[in-house]
Amino acid sequence: MSKIIKGIAASAGIAFAKAYRLENPDLTIVKQSISNPEEEIQRFNDALETAKQELEVIKEKANKDLGEDKAAIFAAHLLVLSDPELINPIKDRIKSENVNAEYSLNETATMFIQMFESMDNEYMKERAADIKDVTKRVLARLLGVTISNPSMISEEVIIIAEDLTPSDTAQLNRDFVLGFTTDIGGRTSHSAIMARSMEIPAVVGAKTVTSDIENGVTVIVDGLDGQIIVNPNDETISEYQAKKEKYEVQKVEWAKLVNESTVTSDNHHVELAANIGTPEDVKGVLANGGEGVGLYRTEFLYMGRDQLPTEEEQFEAYKTVLERMESKPVVVRTLDIGGDKELPYLHLPKELNPFLGFRAIRLCLEEQEIFRTQLRALLRASTYGNLKIMFPMIATLDEFRQAKAILLDEKKKLVESGIQVSENIEIGIMVEIPSTAVLADQFAKEVDFFSIGTNDLIQYTMAADRMNERVSYLYQPYNPSILRLVSTVIDAAHKEGKWAGMCGEMAGDPIAIPILLSLGLDEFSMSATSILPARSQIKKLSKEKASSLKEKILSMSTTEEVVDFVQKNL
Amino acid sequence: MSKIIKGIAASAGIAFAKAYRLENPDLTIVKQSISNPEEEIQRFNDALETAKQELEVIKEKANKDLGEDKAAIFAAHLLVLSDPELINPIKDRIKSENVNAEYSLNETATMFIQMFESMDNEYMKERAADIKDVTKRVLARLLGVTISNPSMISEEVIIIAEDLTPSDTAQLNRDFVLGFTTDIGGRTSHSAIMARSMEIPAVVGAKTVTSDIENGVTVIVDGLDGQIIVNPNDETISEYQAKKEKYEVQKVEWAKLVNESTVTSDNHHVELAANIGTPEDVKGVLANGGEGVGLYRTEFLYMGRDQLPTEEEQFEAYKTVLERMESKPVVVRTLDIGGDKELPYLHLPKELNPFLGFRAIRLCLEEQEIFRTQLRALLRASTYGNLKIMFPMIATLDEFRQAKAILLDEKKKLVESGIQVSENIEIGIMVEIPSTAVLADQFAKEVDFFSIGTNDLIQYTMAADRMNERVSYLYQPYNPSILRLVSTVIDAAHKEGKWAGMCGEMAGDPIAIPILLSLGLDEFSMSATSILPARSQIKKLSKEKASSLKEKILSMSTTEEVVDFVQKNL
Repeated sequence: MSKIIKGIAASAGIAFAKAYRLENPDLTIVKQSISNPEEEIQRFNDALETAKQELEVIKEKANKDLGEDKAAIFAAHLLVLSDPELINPIKDRIKSENVNAEYSLNETATMFIQMFESMDNEYMKERAADIKDVTKRVLARLLGVTISNPSMISEEVIIIAEDLTPSDTAQLNRDFVLGFTTDIGGRTSHSAIMARSMEIPAVVGAKTVTSDIENGVTVIVDGLDGQIIVNPNDETISEYQAKKEKYEVQKVEWAKLVNESTVTSDNHHVELAANIGTPEDVKGVLANGGEGVGLYRTEFLYMGRDQLPTEEEQFEAYKTVLERMESKPVVVRTLDIGGDKELPYLHLPKELNPFLGFRAIRLCLEEQEIFRTQLRALLRASTYGNLKIMFPMIATLDEFRQAKAILLDEKKKLVESGIQVSENIEIGIMVEIPSTAVLADQFAKEVDFFSIGTNDLIQYTMAADRMNERVSYLYQPYNPSILRLVSTVIDAAHKEGKWAGMCGEMAGDPIAIPILLSLGLDEFSMSATSILPARSQIKKLSKEKASSLKEKILSMSTTEEVVDFVQKNL
Repeated sequence: MSKIIKGIAASAGIAFAKAYRLENPDLTIVKQSISNPEEEIQRFNDALETAKQELEVIKEKANKDLGEDKAAIFAAHLLVLSDPELINPIKDRIKSENVNAEYSLNETATMFIQMFESMDNEYMKERAADIKDVTKRVLARLLGVTISNPSMISEEVIIIAEDLTPSDTAQLNRDFVLGFTTDIGGRTSHSAIMARSMEIPAVVGAKTVTSDIENGVTVIVDGLDGQIIVNPNDETISEYQAKKEKYEVQKVEWAKLVNESTVTSDNHHVELAANIGTPEDVKGVLANGGEGVGLYRTEFLYMGRDQLPTEEEQFEAYKTVLERMESKPVVVRTLDIGGDKELPYLHLPKELNPFLGFRAIRLCLEEQEIFRTQLRALLRASTYGNLKIMFPMIATLDEFRQAKAILLDEKKKLVESGIQVSENIEIGIMVEIPSTAVLADQFAKEVDFFSIGTNDLIQYTMAADRMNERVSYLYQPYNPSILRLVSTVIDAAHKEGKWAGMCGEMAGDPIAIPILLSLGLDEFSMSATSILPARSQIKKLSKEKASSLKEKILSMSTTEEVVDFVQKNL
């Protein structure tokens, strides 16, 4: 019986394959007294041996499919499993304390992990990660549960998961993972952003996929319309094959636009830039014809680690992005941490309403050493390309003035100590707080540019947490109040001869694009994979016609009215 | 050594008295085995006897000081302590289980409390509250800790507390409690609002008062400038006596304005109304010359209980307020629950960002039975006075249209069943979400009035939780972005011939008043005790001069600029 599950279209495209469930097994350990330690040690030896065999197979496979580079990690894991300094204490503990192997393994491994993690040395920290990983593997064997090995996938599959973590996605092999679908998440969640950057079709927030889909059944991921078809019949398969082919044809058309500039039918140019998170993302930006980086989210440099990145590490990352982008503009957003993005090692207090809390520039103005380190790294990298610096979560002019003064202070100090800094760094702000949009005319006198961050601007303007499903109906990008604020910001920038961009999800949205064109937006920054479809769409639009509809759109009263009008007229 | 502690001025006035610390003792119970049950029962009897004597004294005192009415509760408590149905099982348990008296008392009392609370009968529920209270008293005796009896205070004191709960404040005797100060809270917290309604000077959020002030030392509460002076010397005492007298003289001047209308020096009338929480507050509104109720917060009807109020209970409350206010306007806000105001019996899920969550009208449109019950009660009460109904947290026109349709539906049903409903009920909205302020021109075509809720409007516009001290610097009522939104709302209302009021704390603020006059606000709703000072201030202002400065104020860029300008020019 075929079945359709609705979700959120997170990454465009159609994929067909067998379902592969990515499970997170329960590895809960219970301490137990045992009567026969020798038998227990034998049970441990058996688990160890099986884990080693498993790893050998994975290593060979990785060698063949992913290259020696990625296979090296499994060689390291094998070494850990043969290390008597780890293995002997586990056996000793079973014997001396008469405890079960799971407990002994976990206690001993935890001790080593903590020891390695506390060392101020990257190599040792990596050893801690290796021990964690192999401990999990042997524990699963002892407990008789199966763990998923996404890197082991050797046939074409669709991944079915509750959610995907950054480390899950890092292990996915793009040759075999044709698409994925998750129970939770939205268009702006991590897994959705990853899917677009990996260019694989994905449907997120599909709620029941892990409960409804069994391993091995045929699944179609429709990342165009946000649905999953489970067990499709032949007719449905043909239908989706046609849809897929049509999309492929369109993609080929889009691909022809890579080196073209983005001009409307009446020759008005806008800039299409990309949002990135790491230097590796630059490849995708260029492959998709990005005219710049409109938002470099520097948070990833600070996340998934246990201390702040050094100035040098940051400098290298910023320099790499600037160099790879050649002379194209790169807008770097300074640290935007807090809210839903926590850094455990900063030990920030829990807040009742983190989205309305101590985050981004608020934190940077108080924890100035963190901020100044980042600014120094940026200033030093500025000579390697076309750098623009942007401060997030600016709510008042005072905050902007303070942040700019700190930046200029660090610049002065660098120049005085003989370090070269570019003289042409534009300094701008994210407009994502209503107060700043309302007061844009005053800000426009002092900033070099605006970049409208719609994800937050919408959530604050509507007073609705975009992660909270009970109020998600209020996350309305086309609400006339949002469009008016966007228009206010663009007009204010133009009046002072500055430019206005947008780096929220809205900038790449086919319904929003004609509206934003009518409001006069200069730069659209989006997921790299949205650039070519957007360019294709914009080339067919007339700027003059769009502009003539601006007043009409801004005088509407509901989201429905706007969407209806745009679909009929633009 | 005298010492000054800074806090937030929560209620105007100056008070001198001895410090009285309101403690919340630790009544943690540990289950213990005892060897001699007879001795333990004797210990329980002793505690019981002392508690009874204590209650007798309190009862006599309450009789004398507060009247028989308030003393009745202590008579009820004495009855509970003599009830063999409660006392005998406690003694039996000590003997049969060999446990300590504290444990036995707590177990037995909890069982009775749960039993009474689960009964669908108000009288039985009150018995549960009585048992809770006496259990606490006997437990304190058994544990050898002291509990505060605020109702027992018989000399003039200043209360020092970490915070005051509604039930603490209910017990305060206004004759003896001359002022209070708390460690936590802000101008809009419960204790601050209570202080203004009780008209006693208060300083809240003073952080260290419970750690810095000992019982019995002399304390001055300066509710005008937000400070506490501990152990003042003679010179300081004289200085504050003079300040107090000056304030008293001013109050006498204000009192003369009770029956006057609120007109500026150039004869422009504005309406000064009061914010209330219960029918009892109407007395204070009239005593302070309120021209109406600008905000009746109906939440209190739903709080501090374990089930929803019936339509009848609500009808009685609304009718009482309308009758007591005679024909003066009464703006009733429909249920605004959620955010920081929880109703445990609704079992709402915990939210990550409750201020951006499922609250107020969002909840009412989904839980329609709750909403419809309230609307029926309001409609039935409408014939007893001048009722206006206002919906909170409206973010889109759709929400307003839905809420209004439900109201009209209930009205139609009532009229059809022969119940009289006023034909002149104005239907308006709170403007407290930025989207609604930005789109006020569209709303003005459909609503009868606006009431600007500045507490929330500021927090959403600045994206800063007003309860979070780390971002409290962003709670800026005079930020030009806020003033522009307020101005947009007022202009939009006037263009459609509607009126615009304000019911946030800002409406009673001496710096905001001239600005709001310049922007053309029609109705100012504030704490009752702020009405006369506001009237006095407004009578000295010129509407023409204020209006002439409107454009200038709206073109400013920071809060500091606005405050500076207003202080020099208005």
